[in-house]
Amino acid sequence: MITKNQAKYIQSLGQKKLRDAEQVFIAEGPKLVNELLQADKCNVIQVYALDEWTNTVKTNAEIVRITPGELQKISQLTTPHQVLAIVKKIQWNDPPSIKETVSLVLDDIQDPGNMGTIIRLADWFAIKNIFCSMGCADIYNPKVVQASMGSITRVRVEYTELVSFLNKNKDLRIYATVLNGRDVTKMEKLTEGFIMIGNESKGINNQLLNLANVQITIPGKGKAESLNAAVATGIILSHLVV
Amino acid sequence: MITKNQAKYIQSLGQKKLRDAEQVFIAEGPKLVNELLQADKCNVIQVYALDEWTNTVKTNAEIVRITPGELQKISQLTTPHQVLAIVKKIQWNDPPSIKETVSLVLDDIQDPGNMGTIIRLADWFAIKNIFCSMGCADIYNPKVVQASMGSITRVRVEYTELVSFLNKNKDLRIYATVLNGRDVTKMEKLTEGFIMIGNESKGINNQLLNLANVQITIPGKGKAESLNAAVATGIILSHLVV
Repeated sequence: MITKNQAKYIQSLGQKKLRDAEQVFIAEGPKLVNELLQADKCNVIQVYALDEWTNTVKTNAEIVRITPGELQKISQLTTPHQVLAIVKKIQWNDPPSIKETVSLVLDDIQDPGNMGTIIRLADWFAIKNIFCSMGCADIYNPKVVQASMGSITRVRVEYTELVSFLNKNKDLRIYATVLNGRDVTKMEKLTEGFIMIGNESKGINNQLLNLANVQITIPGKGKAESLNAAVATGIILSHLVV
Repeated sequence: MITKNQAKYIQSLGQKKLRDAEQVFIAEGPKLVNELLQADKCNVIQVYALDEWTNTVKTNAEIVRITPGELQKISQLTTPHQVLAIVKKIQWNDPPSIKETVSLVLDDIQDPGNMGTIIRLADWFAIKNIFCSMGCADIYNPKVVQASMGSITRVRVEYTELVSFLNKNKDLRIYATVLNGRDVTKMEKLTEGFIMIGNESKGINNQLLNLANVQITIPGKGKAESLNAAVATGIILSHLVV
């Protein structure tokens, strides 16, 4: 049973402003919620679930048993799926370590699906850090959380003013993904540096591009004008990361 | 000015059944519509457009001038964008040529965004043919059309019963993307054959998998359980296609 105020509170967490104020986010579905319940970095505050989920899971988190109708009301998904959890934003204690590792730098990736997919594939390739411009989609946007499939607990995502961040770390090389750079399929694997990916329609802004040491490109003999940003990130990582 | 019947007709084309009956589809936005107007394979039947579009384009297609309010009413997009066209489904005359070329085979790719992205990246890598199981998203679904960005005019997409199709073409090798096959980054480039991609959550069904000559995998040292289907397709193509 869910109260009107609880329902209102959960719905409000669709908005970034309120997620930021409360320092929490929403996760849905048994697969994702079960993964978050088991993750080290994760603090699940409250779970709203149908009996079919509650009866199969052992957890110390507080569970509110709800009906399918109630779940429908609080869910952000078109097809709600058994369980919704309110989760504390992930806390990373030490400053991110960027030496002897490859990090991603995202300039205004705005589509939440792309953002979630990029976090997931960073996790696949064991990338530890993603540095995002302030114009990137919020990782705690429900669509990003769903698309990232639990990878947000393993990949550290930081929002920062990228020009000054990169200027402070000039000892590391910056590889910028563009349409007419070096053929990425012919490059050596990287052991350190930043791989920079640009906005879905505008690419990388000039101020950031000027900071790049190497411009890289995915060769293609066809006629498509561009590749989806998440697909491009996946291809680049598969060629440059060990 | 748009009549009530025209509006109703256009809205109905969101449904596959009616697109199939009429043999047409909808495309929206200046970039896509302009590309379709110029494409060889494409027959744009009617265009509904705001003056800001009409005043910048030369075309023989029939244009109905409409208001932003009318466009809002007929558009399938959250943010309608100047122009909507009704386009004849693309006709390919000769049977698809699969010799001396690499083709994609998709088993139940259900997400329209993934489907559109895969068509676009097939176009990037100059893949000419995609063979889809009957359970794949319809390429004329408005979301697929938008995500493919005009690549549907250059990449031939056929829906067919895959098991019998592949059995008929046993002289070509089949490379199936799985989670524990040969490392795709260490393989030679292909000049001929089928690259098979499975459903977003279930992967490739067993009957199809049994037909594969080689099972291939994208290596990753991280902890994500899987990669997005479109991202996986992009990575595979970037390693296997010249």
